[in-house]
Amino acid sequence: MNTRLPPSAFKQRITSIRNLLSESMSDAGIWFDAKSIEYLVGFSFVQTERPVALAVTDDTIAAAVPRLEVDRIQTNSHVEKIYDYFDYPQGDPLATVATMLDELDVKHVAADQDGAPGVMGYEGPPLSSFLSVENQNWVSTARRQKSTDEFDLIRESARWAGEANRELAEQTEIGAHPVIVSGRASTATSERMMSSLRGEYDLRSRGRNPAFAGMVHGENTALPHGYALNEPLSDGDTIVTGATANVGGYYAELERTMFVGEPSDEDEHYFELVSEAQEIAFEVIAPSVEASYVDAQVAAYFEEQGVSSLSRHHTGHNIGLEFHEPPYLDIGSDAVIKPGHVYAVEPGIYTDNTGYRHSDTLLIHEDSVERITEYPRDLASNIIS
Amino acid sequence: MNTRLPPSAFKQRITSIRNLLSESMSDAGIWFDAKSIEYLVGFSFVQTERPVALAVTDDTIAAAVPRLEVDRIQTNSHVEKIYDYFDYPQGDPLATVATMLDELDVKHVAADQDGAPGVMGYEGPPLSSFLSVENQNWVSTARRQKSTDEFDLIRESARWAGEANRELAEQTEIGAHPVIVSGRASTATSERMMSSLRGEYDLRSRGRNPAFAGMVHGENTALPHGYALNEPLSDGDTIVTGATANVGGYYAELERTMFVGEPSDEDEHYFELVSEAQEIAFEVIAPSVEASYVDAQVAAYFEEQGVSSLSRHHTGHNIGLEFHEPPYLDIGSDAVIKPGHVYAVEPGIYTDNTGYRHSDTLLIHEDSVERITEYPRDLASNIIS
Repeated sequence: MNTRLPPSAFKQRITSIRNLLSESMSDAGIWFDAKSIEYLVGFSFVQTERPVALAVTDDTIAAAVPRLEVDRIQTNSHVEKIYDYFDYPQGDPLATVATMLDELDVKHVAADQDGAPGVMGYEGPPLSSFLSVENQNWVSTARRQKSTDEFDLIRESARWAGEANRELAEQTEIGAHPVIVSGRASTATSERMMSSLRGEYDLRSRGRNPAFAGMVHGENTALPHGYALNEPLSDGDTIVTGATANVGGYYAELERTMFVGEPSDEDEHYFELVSEAQEIAFEVIAPSVEASYVDAQVAAYFEEQGVSSLSRHHTGHNIGLEFHEPPYLDIGSDAVIKPGHVYAVEPGIYTDNTGYRHSDTLLIHEDSVERITEYPRDLASNIIS
Repeated sequence: MNTRLPPSAFKQRITSIRNLLSESMSDAGIWFDAKSIEYLVGFSFVQTERPVALAVTDDTIAAAVPRLEVDRIQTNSHVEKIYDYFDYPQGDPLATVATMLDELDVKHVAADQDGAPGVMGYEGPPLSSFLSVENQNWVSTARRQKSTDEFDLIRESARWAGEANRELAEQTEIGAHPVIVSGRASTATSERMMSSLRGEYDLRSRGRNPAFAGMVHGENTALPHGYALNEPLSDGDTIVTGATANVGGYYAELERTMFVGEPSDEDEHYFELVSEAQEIAFEVIAPSVEASYVDAQVAAYFEEQGVSSLSRHHTGHNIGLEFHEPPYLDIGSDAVIKPGHVYAVEPGIYTDNTGYRHSDTLLIHEDSVERITEYPRDLASNIIS
C-alpha cells in the first residue's frame, strides 16, 4: 500500500503549472498558501507568522523560508534553491521573497495572493510593492481533480476511518464521556494503522492521533458544527460520529448517526429519512452531472417528506488535502461533477434537539462512482446495545 | 476555578471597541476573523468556506452566519441581531453582510479585512464593493494585553499542561511509539481535567483531547517545527515534549527536553546551555523592558558560548487564544513588554541531529513576573529511566 505520493506525481503537477505559466504574462508562479505549497512539492508545514513562499519558473523551483524550516526543506527533492530569513520580525520575509524572484530574473509574477497571509500577527507589505503581480488560482483549480495516486491515499484514509468508527462504537457505553471514548478509540486505531503501514507511513503529527473518530451526542447533535456535549453518554442518546485518518496529507470523511440503546420512533423515522436522502444522492451522483442537481434531488425529497425546514446545509463537498474543498454539492454551484472529484455526501436533518446525518466518501471515476467508506449504514448496525 | 470568561469580560471588550469606534470615521466595526469574533462575543466556531461576520455599532451587536450556525449563535448572550444565509455557494454571504450593515444604518465601516477570508474555496466580493470601508486592527491590538480573567484561564491551562507532560513522561518507555504514548497520556490527562473541572469545563472539541502532550524524538528534535519521528523510542533518545490544554479557548505552552536513559556528555552540555539561556531570559523579562532586549541577551549568551550558528529562532512569543501572538521576543521587535502580556520563553539550540529547548509560560504583572508552568527544568528531573 502506497501511503505517500510518488515523486512523479509532483513532477506532473509542476509540469501542469509550467504549461499555465507559459500561457500567462508572468515569468513565475508564486504561492504563500501552505496547502498549495504542499500540493506542488510535498513540503508540509504549519502556516504561522513566519511566511513561506514557493516560486516556480520555467526551469527552477525555489522557496523562501524561515531559518527553522531550512533543514526540513533541504530534504525536499523538488525544491532546487532555498532562500531564508532568520525569523520574524527581525527578518524581512517579503524582502527575502523579492530577492529570490530577482535572482530568478522574474519581472512579473502570478501569485496566489498579494503577499503573505496575515496570520498570528504577521504584518508585511504586499508583493506588488516589489514587482508586477497578477493573481492566479492555478493550484486551487488543479486540486479539485484528484489523480489515481491521490485516490489511493484517500481510499486508505477511508479504510482507517472505518476502523476508527468501529473502535469508537465498541468503546461507547452508558456513563462514558464522549471525548474519552474518542481519545481511546483514536489512539487504538492509530496504533493499528501505524503498525500496519509501518515505516511507509508518512507521519504528520507531533502527537495528535493520525486516525481519529469523534462524536457529538444528545442535544448537541442538533448543531451541525457544534462541539461535543460535556456530559456522560446516557441510554437513549443519539450520537453523530465523525471519523478520518491522515494518509499522506489526504482525508476521507465517514460519519454515522448511531443510538445508545433503542431509538425512539421519531429517531427511527428521521434516521431512515436521511439514509434515504443519502441513497438518492448516491443514485444521481455521476460524472457529467451538475453538482447542483444532486443537491436539488435531496432538497426535493426533503420537501416531499415535509422536512425542508429541518435542513441546515447542502448535500456535500469535495475533500482531499482539506476537509472541505470546492466544488460543493450545492444548489447554487455551477460546477459539473468530473472524474477525479471526491465527494463527502452528507445530507442532514435537524430537529430542535436532535440531528441525523451519515457522511460517506465517493470517488468519481471515468464512468463509475466508488463508495470507499464501508461502514454499514442500516439502523440495526448503528444501534449500540 | 473559573474556566470560562464572565459576561462582564465581553462587555468590557465591546466598550473598548465602541470607544475606538467613536474616535473613528466609521458607524460600525466589522470582523470576519474567527478568533476576533470569539474574542469579542465568545462565539467559537471553525473558519470554513461559510463566512461569519460580526458587526458592532454604538448600540447594537449583530452577526451574519450560515444557517448551520444559527442555533449556536442564538444561545450567545451578547449578539442581539442575527442575519443568515442558507449555505455557500447558494447563499450570498457578503450580500447578507451588506443587508445587515444597511439595516443597522451603517454607511462607513471599519473592517478587520476587506471581505471574508478565502479559505476552503470561498470566493466572494470585497466588502468595499458594497460600502465605504476603512481598515482597523482594534481586536488584534487589544488581544496583546490579557486581563486577570484571561490570566486565570491561561494559568489553568498551564496546570493541565504540566499534568499532561508528567503523564507523558510516565508512559514513555523504550520500544513505545511516541504518537501512541502521546495519545494515551493526552486522553488520561483530559479525563482527569474534565473530572476535576466538571460541567464548568467549556468543551471545544468533537473528540480531540482537550489536554495534550506530544513529543518529537531522535533526529527530528533538530527540526524546531518538524513532525514526530515514525519510529519507536530507543535508549539514549533525546525528546522534546510539547504540552498544553484548552481552557475557555486559551492556551499556555510547556515544553521540555528529556532523555530516554542516560544523556551523552554533549546532550548534558547543550541541555545546561539552553536551560541557562532560558534563565537569562527569565531574569531580564519584566514590564517596561523592550522585547528585543530579552532576545538580544539570549543571543549574546549564545555568542559567548560559541553556539550562535546553532540557533534557529528567536526567544519566544506572546500566547493566548492562539499558540503564537505578537509581540515576539525578537531582536527586530519594537514592542515594550507590558502588564497583561503572556510569554512562552523558549530559546533553542540545534545540532545537525539533535535539538534542545524548554518552553515555559510567564504572566507579566504590574511589577512582577509569574512563571505558571511548574514542571521541573533540571537535568535529573528530565531523565526517564
